[in-house]
Amino acid sequence: MASYGMHHRTADFRALFTRVLADLKEFMGTRNDVLVLTSSGTGLMEAAISNLTSPGDRVVVLTAGKFGERWVSLAKAFGCTVETGTAPYGQTFALEAVRAKLTPETRCVYVQATESSTGARHDIESIAKAVRALPETLLIVDAITGLGTTRLDVDAWGIDVIVGGSQKALMIPPGLAYGAVSERAWQRMETTKSPRYYFDLRKERKAAAKAETSYTPATSLFAGLGAALDYVRQMGDGNLAAGRDALIANAEMCAAMTRAGVQALGLKLFAESAPAAALTAVAAPAGVDSTAICKRFRDQFGAVVANGQAEMKGQIFRIAHIGYYDYLDTVGVLAALEHVMAETIGKKVEYGSAVRAAQEAYEKAKG
Amino acid sequence: MASYGMHHRTADFRALFTRVLADLKEFMGTRNDVLVLTSSGTGLMEAAISNLTSPGDRVVVLTAGKFGERWVSLAKAFGCTVETGTAPYGQTFALEAVRAKLTPETRCVYVQATESSTGARHDIESIAKAVRALPETLLIVDAITGLGTTRLDVDAWGIDVIVGGSQKALMIPPGLAYGAVSERAWQRMETTKSPRYYFDLRKERKAAAKAETSYTPATSLFAGLGAALDYVRQMGDGNLAAGRDALIANAEMCAAMTRAGVQALGLKLFAESAPAAALTAVAAPAGVDSTAICKRFRDQFGAVVANGQAEMKGQIFRIAHIGYYDYLDTVGVLAALEHVMAETIGKKVEYGSAVRAAQEAYEKAKG
Repeated sequence: MASYGMHHRTADFRALFTRVLADLKEFMGTRNDVLVLTSSGTGLMEAAISNLTSPGDRVVVLTAGKFGERWVSLAKAFGCTVETGTAPYGQTFALEAVRAKLTPETRCVYVQATESSTGARHDIESIAKAVRALPETLLIVDAITGLGTTRLDVDAWGIDVIVGGSQKALMIPPGLAYGAVSERAWQRMETTKSPRYYFDLRKERKAAAKAETSYTPATSLFAGLGAALDYVRQMGDGNLAAGRDALIANAEMCAAMTRAGVQALGLKLFAESAPAAALTAVAAPAGVDSTAICKRFRDQFGAVVANGQAEMKGQIFRIAHIGYYDYLDTVGVLAALEHVMAETIGKKVEYGSAVRAAQEAYEKAKG
Repeated sequence: MASYGMHHRTADFRALFTRVLADLKEFMGTRNDVLVLTSSGTGLMEAAISNLTSPGDRVVVLTAGKFGERWVSLAKAFGCTVETGTAPYGQTFALEAVRAKLTPETRCVYVQATESSTGARHDIESIAKAVRALPETLLIVDAITGLGTTRLDVDAWGIDVIVGGSQKALMIPPGLAYGAVSERAWQRMETTKSPRYYFDLRKERKAAAKAETSYTPATSLFAGLGAALDYVRQMGDGNLAAGRDALIANAEMCAAMTRAGVQALGLKLFAESAPAAALTAVAAPAGVDSTAICKRFRDQFGAVVANGQAEMKGQIFRIAHIGYYDYLDTVGVLAALEHVMAETIGKKVEYGSAVRAAQEAYEKAKG
């Protein structure tokens, strides 16, 4: 029976589960309750809608890309009255416009820390300040690509629900969503009426108090998550928060190098005004379909560079800087990009120029 | 970037995904559409409620254990009017009583193929016949432990949604739910109004047509599922359906051996009248808490024997026969059970008696 792997109703799994929850608390830097769900990050996004709203509730979604639009669809699916604050793709919100959307009747505000469809970072600290001025309004942040790539002070800023996913900065395969829930949010759940079952957070909290999950957890991914958190702690010389800060610094460094390298090739950054550290989105040069660029990266160099999503497909390509991705990967991708550009644009590229710009950015950032 | 594992927006994943869906179709023996969700089996149970009902719909749940009660809670969470047909724990339903519950207004009937909290098997073929007499009633079967341990003819019997989980007969870690959906069920979804998003099956079907999933899938578990299906095909000498039948025959054999061994020790089967092949539930002897039995199995023999759930905790223990579990494991567990019984009851046990009974059952079944 050992061949079934770790059974979830065992002391071994309970010990792993308890350790993972405690470590995630440290990783996210919060005293709030931490939860892990067996689903992709979208499952916890749904939970942050279905647990915190009743049909008809007025919610504000700040959206500037595909993942912002996911909040809109989710809120509508559960019958919320959705007010949107928008910014063009690749940009972030004007703070005054955000404030104008908020009213005392706003039950929840939903936003991304980093919008991975465009590579833009939103200013969660300022948005949180605006939301916290309203006593009855909860702030929910999708930080699936934000956690471990950008600074997020959950408790000091007053983020009521923060949402993370296993496959991003924590570098394990997808299939687990994790997050932290504030006391304010738990109280809200006492009265909200939207239906929920698999993603019922109060039930999950109760189970967690007994070192259990409500439903069969993805045990192999839990084991991976535990190992990933150990790795992050090692990065911080035994301190998990320091390891997370090192992860963020690494992402910032790779992003700065990539931006410098891409621009040295004359390419345009898609989210130039508010670039995220999690990834860099690059506009495809005029007349070139980014699909061909991504295909060449994969076929020729075995590198996954993501295409744009939905109507942005063909328009941009996206280079990730999360988790294990480091100096060597960055230099490698930029060198490959030089070949890819030479072949897809067909104009002369000075080999080494993107790499050199990245190296200079590295030296400058290192100080 | 290779260290991120298989990215889900790649040709490699699409090929794996397409192959897994086709293989699952063969494994379940159906021409219906097959879907895989990143969640435990309960996620697809929720989908079978939220996609197939509107608030206020009359549904019938046939329940005789913890997992039947999960259908009841789910249906109530989504606002259904729930009529239950019950049997005592450890037993199955009287068919006349089932028929009496069904009316032309019954929108859906929910049931387990095998109730893993008690070890009982329900007669899905007869229940299906009764449901199919009603043109407007859908039949949804939780076969999380039933698939690969008991014969289920999805298409001939007219099962509209069948629900499976990765960690049972397919022997990979938990985290994926899979199932098949009939044309009748797809049509029902055109008009139902319960909120759903992460578990929206129509969206998942659309994505699957493009060899994609709606949300980030648990890629590592998909790879495991592909390998498990290959293994089952090998068991059937290249034929997946034959491999599944071999899995079922193996479970039946292990279950028959276990029942014989357990009874030879004077222990009482908990689901004697309708025993499932997936597992054997055994009543703890008078004065003995089954918790102690399970603990001894684990501490002394490294074997996971499951306790009863909720109020059945301490009353029964459950021995699984799914997947890789085979003749050798069965004999091993029964031999261990002899020691455990000697120590917990404190009365003399004839060593080898349970094993011998199991061997005789093996020879008899082999014919």
